Amino acid sequence: HPHYRAPRGSQLHALSWQTEAPLRMLLNNLDAEVAEDPDRLVVYGGTGQAARNREALEKIIDCLLQLRDDQSLLVQSGKPVGIMPTHPEAPRVLIANSNLVPAWASWEHFENLKARGLMMYGQMTAGSWIYIGTQGIVQGTYETFAACGRQHFGGSLHKKLVVSGGLGGMGGAQPLAATIAGGTFLGVDIDPSRIQKRIDTRYCDRMTYEYEEAKRWALDARDKGEAISIGLVGDIGDVLERLLQDGIIPDVLTDQTSAHDPVHGYVPNGLSLQEAAELRQRNPQAYKERSLKSMARHVGFMLEMQKRGAKTFDYGNNLREFARQGGEPNAFDFKGFVPEYIRPQFCEGRGPFRWAALSGDPDDIFATDQALKELFPQNEGLHRWLEAARDRIAFQGLPSRICWLGMGERQQAGLLFNEMVRDGRLKAPLVIGRDHLDCGSVASPNRETEGMLDGSDAVSDWPLLNLMSNTAGGATWVSFHHGGGVGIGYSQHAGMVVLADGSERAANCLKRVLHIDPAMGVIRHADAGYVRAKEWGERFELLV
Amino acid sequence: HPHYRAPRGSQLHALSWQTEAPLRMLLNNLDAEVAEDPDRLVVYGGTGQAARNREALEKIIDCLLQLRDDQSLLVQSGKPVGIMPTHPEAPRVLIANSNLVPAWASWEHFENLKARGLMMYGQMTAGSWIYIGTQGIVQGTYETFAACGRQHFGGSLHKKLVVSGGLGGMGGAQPLAATIAGGTFLGVDIDPSRIQKRIDTRYCDRMTYEYEEAKRWALDARDKGEAISIGLVGDIGDVLERLLQDGIIPDVLTDQTSAHDPVHGYVPNGLSLQEAAELRQRNPQAYKERSLKSMARHVGFMLEMQKRGAKTFDYGNNLREFARQGGEPNAFDFKGFVPEYIRPQFCEGRGPFRWAALSGDPDDIFATDQALKELFPQNEGLHRWLEAARDRIAFQGLPSRICWLGMGERQQAGLLFNEMVRDGRLKAPLVIGRDHLDCGSVASPNRETEGMLDGSDAVSDWPLLNLMSNTAGGATWVSFHHGGGVGIGYSQHAGMVVLADGSERAANCLKRVLHIDPAMGVIRHADAGYVRAKEWGERFELLV
Ligand SMILES: NC(=O)c1ccc[n+]([C@@H]2O[C@H](COP(=O)([O-])OP(=O)(O)OC[C@H]3O[C@@H](n4cnc5c(N)ncnc54)[C@H](O)[C@@H]3O)[C@@H](O)[C@H]2O)c1
Ligand SMILES: NC(=O)c1ccc[n+]([C@@H]2O[C@H](COP(=O)([O-])OP(=O)(O)OC[C@H]3O[C@@H](n4cnc5c(N)ncnc54)[C@H](O)[C@@H]3O)[C@@H](O)[C@H]2O)c1
Repeated sequence: HPHYRAPRGSQLHALSWQTEAPLRMLLNNLDAEVAEDPDRLVVYGGTGQAARNREALEKIIDCLLQLRDDQSLLVQSGKPVGIMPTHPEAPRVLIANSNLVPAWASWEHFENLKARGLMMYGQMTAGSWIYIGTQGIVQGTYETFAACGRQHFGGSLHKKLVVSGGLGGMGGAQPLAATIAGGTFLGVDIDPSRIQKRIDTRYCDRMTYEYEEAKRWALDARDKGEAISIGLVGDIGDVLERLLQDGIIPDVLTDQTSAHDPVHGYVPNGLSLQEAAELRQRNPQAYKERSLKSMARHVGFMLEMQKRGAKTFDYGNNLREFARQGGEPNAFDFKGFVPEYIRPQFCEGRGPFRWAALSGDPDDIFATDQALKELFPQNEGLHRWLEAARDRIAFQGLPSRICWLGMGERQQAGLLFNEMVRDGRLKAPLVIGRDHLDCGSVASPNRETEGMLDGSDAVSDWPLLNLMSNTAGGATWVSFHHGGGVGIGYSQHAGMVVLADGSERAANCLKRVLHIDPAMGVIRHADAGYVRAKEWGERFELLV
Repeated sequence: HPHYRAPRGSQLHALSWQTEAPLRMLLNNLDAEVAEDPDRLVVYGGTGQAARNREALEKIIDCLLQLRDDQSLLVQSGKPVGIMPTHPEAPRVLIANSNLVPAWASWEHFENLKARGLMMYGQMTAGSWIYIGTQGIVQGTYETFAACGRQHFGGSLHKKLVVSGGLGGMGGAQPLAATIAGGTFLGVDIDPSRIQKRIDTRYCDRMTYEYEEAKRWALDARDKGEAISIGLVGDIGDVLERLLQDGIIPDVLTDQTSAHDPVHGYVPNGLSLQEAAELRQRNPQAYKERSLKSMARHVGFMLEMQKRGAKTFDYGNNLREFARQGGEPNAFDFKGFVPEYIRPQFCEGRGPFRWAALSGDPDDIFATDQALKELFPQNEGLHRWLEAARDRIAFQGLPSRICWLGMGERQQAGLLFNEMVRDGRLKAPLVIGRDHLDCGSVASPNRETEGMLDGSDAVSDWPLLNLMSNTAGGATWVSFHHGGGVGIGYSQHAGMVVLADGSERAANCLKRVLHIDPAMGVIRHADAGYVRAKEWGERFELLV
């Protein structure tokens, strides 16, 4: 199979940086260092693809190599379908992925269309060519823990104990994220191989099979204010029970076991991994019942700890729902992480700001890290993240960075980066983009827009306005997707990437787009009635 | 209540024509001459609104009066929510109406949100400020009949007999449209008051209660090539039966009775209006059964006439489905009007091109009529329509015109109109727009995209690409709606309006947008495999 890899350096292959940029980012999305399965063009998130098939991919590349700066390429579910006359301050690529008329918006209909070669699942950043590897997961988890620290503990998680279950694919980011946020972390997983993997990649510091040892390490580190992480092999329910018996209440408590799937995911209390595998095979119905009961028990302990002062939240794995089914009537007494920690940030236009160095040179990213620290000297959380990211997270594909910035900050950063390109401090242009999971770009009633104050969870006018204004403002490419994160039928969201090539044109576009994009978040939340968003809207004069 | 009316003349109220234009068209949509129910801000199509409520309307007006040409106003389901920094070649207004995440896209959820003041139903041109009254219905019906004439009879319906049932709200456009298309028209309605109304408004020429008289008139006119229309009071099934007995086979046969509603619409065979009203009241179930049986009988006669040579098609009233339920197994042996007559036009990028004179002066429209005739001297159908429209259709609100133009033609017309504004042949600028029901701007699997060749009926990437490219190309306002025509859950579609104010800027935008918009139709249909669209795509070099 071809080894996809973005060109590096300052030599153009396309006609300008406006088209070279999407070309490099498309290829970067498919780089074996970045993508889950480059052969199948799958970037991440199950089946999230960057292009519909080999042929379509090659055609996109051809089109980008020839595209002029007064033209825009149209991509329909990963396939190029036309080139339209536009102008230099319009996007160079316009992307629509996986969109279906609502009454037909089911996985079944989608799979049928996909089988006939008519569609592709774009996830969020896969089909919109701005995925940057696992750094995003660590950072997102860090933002949640950091917000928790700011909100409840006057700054960081220093001298606080964070406890969670599950150190798998996503949950494995928790030990690293929690320690970057300053906390002491105790994570429990029933599967030792999952913990071992985190140890091998330095995401987790220590591992043990012994409760007593883990407890000693954890209390000791917490009291000394050591930001270390501990992986304990065991059932999370059992460990919480023992902590309660010992009168140890975590400061922060959450969970990332695979509770979303009570049969193939969560391991019921009292079973070894081996026994669980056998029962799953032999009697899935019995397995499910034990799972639900175990989750009820597990959540029961969480509720008790919450009563005794632990800041307790759900981390999007549907644990509460299954615990309720398993017999815990008060399962929903603790909230989800979005309303608790993410939405307050969305109200300030904060969200996942990311950029990639088209030069391929890590020094370009380190230079931007440094520049950002100087630009925001007061932002302690940002400094902590940038330093930790530099030290502990390996680049995948083109060097890139993610951090959360809000209204005002994003524009400042973007304009600064553009100057750095212009005056040669960077070796080649950068692209600046974000996840579709942002403050003003997604409608997803089971996640990002769950429980909106005014009940407008399902109103998707907002991501559409985001799409339109970023297009009008001059993003370099824009996208609109359906079904990312939570699956077909359940979300609609918009993406954008904007180029910083040092030009005056780029400065104009960056100034507009990096105002528009976070402003959409502030406006959307102000309209829903959030006080903080209204304050932010007034401060930046965003409200009509 | 306030009497909404667009300002006339060449005096600006807003800061430029780019913002004066949406202001005038918004007010025009609510003009009592145009709107169904201005008090409730309802423009047409049940509950299709131009603004969410009085307060939102006033705020939109305020915003437009102050909006600069480097700003864009955001409208979310009829309410202004923000003003974004953009640039002079970007749209001045960005509109998203009635959009819901698919799994919540039901009338029930929508009505709930509407009741809480969070949403509005935009229909197609109501919420996007480019409705122009009933001229659109007549013209749409004319296009179908004219396409039928071109496709089957080498040009027009001259010396052809068109027979249809139903002369109600929409069906009443048939006699006028058929005669403009050159045909002789015999329409049958059970309700004499509906026919009388068409006589009063000169949409229909003659009326009778006698089959024999109607038959004589019809055959006579057809043989002499007289384009007249006849309304016959009676049951459509009975009339078709007698025509068959008399060996009279129409050249064109369709139906616009209210078959979509077997209880409150269609009147069963053998019942007077009075009897029908009583039975409906007394025993709706029995009524429905009789309706279905009558429709089966009605369609049986249509199938027989089709066999004997009548060009027979369904006109979107669901008659075939209910006839099938009523016992006619072959009901679907004739096709719908979209695949039969509309889609071939969509393949050529043809669709509902419309414009309005912001001056308010009818002479501006007459001047454009004349100019179009000179621009397209060979287009007989266009000439026939423009003359008939001038003679027989009264303007409502700002004088406007609709006609179908295709790829290439729209751009030529738009640039010509812009020159006419520049050199003073017109008294003020025009706006050029269209229905969302166009070749490349709608996904609606029960109507416009029913039965696509490749099965891509429900793929809504296409209207989204239309939205993005018209935004990037520089339309003056753009919109994206959900649920127009066929209701919440069943369609997604994009609108655009572009200003011709005589400026160089406008010429650039018109040139791009009036290329992009029909090109989307050609590309969408070429991608689905339609040969004619592929030919058009090659001719205009649209395919990648
Ligand atoms: N909403 C969000 O944004 C978000 C973000 C991250 C994760 N999640 C959710 O978090 C969950 C975890 O995701 P993942 O990718 O890490 O899954 P995964 O399957 O890779 O890992 C789950 C881990 O839980 C462990 N586990 C199962 N039962 C256990 C038990 N009783 N005690 C202790 N450990 C147990 C497993 O051994 C496994 O290592 C998923 O449900 C995911 O959807 C949601
Ligand atoms: N898909 C489209 O684009 C499209 C366009 C136009 C109309 N339509 C459909 O056409 C139908 C008519 O629309 P409308 O607005 O004119 O409805 P309407 O209710 O105003 O008129 C229907 C007419 O049919 C007559 N009628 C009922 N039963 C009859 C019978 N057995 N014999 C003779 N006449 C009978 C009624 O008296 C009435 O005048 C609807 O189903 C509508 O949805 C669809």
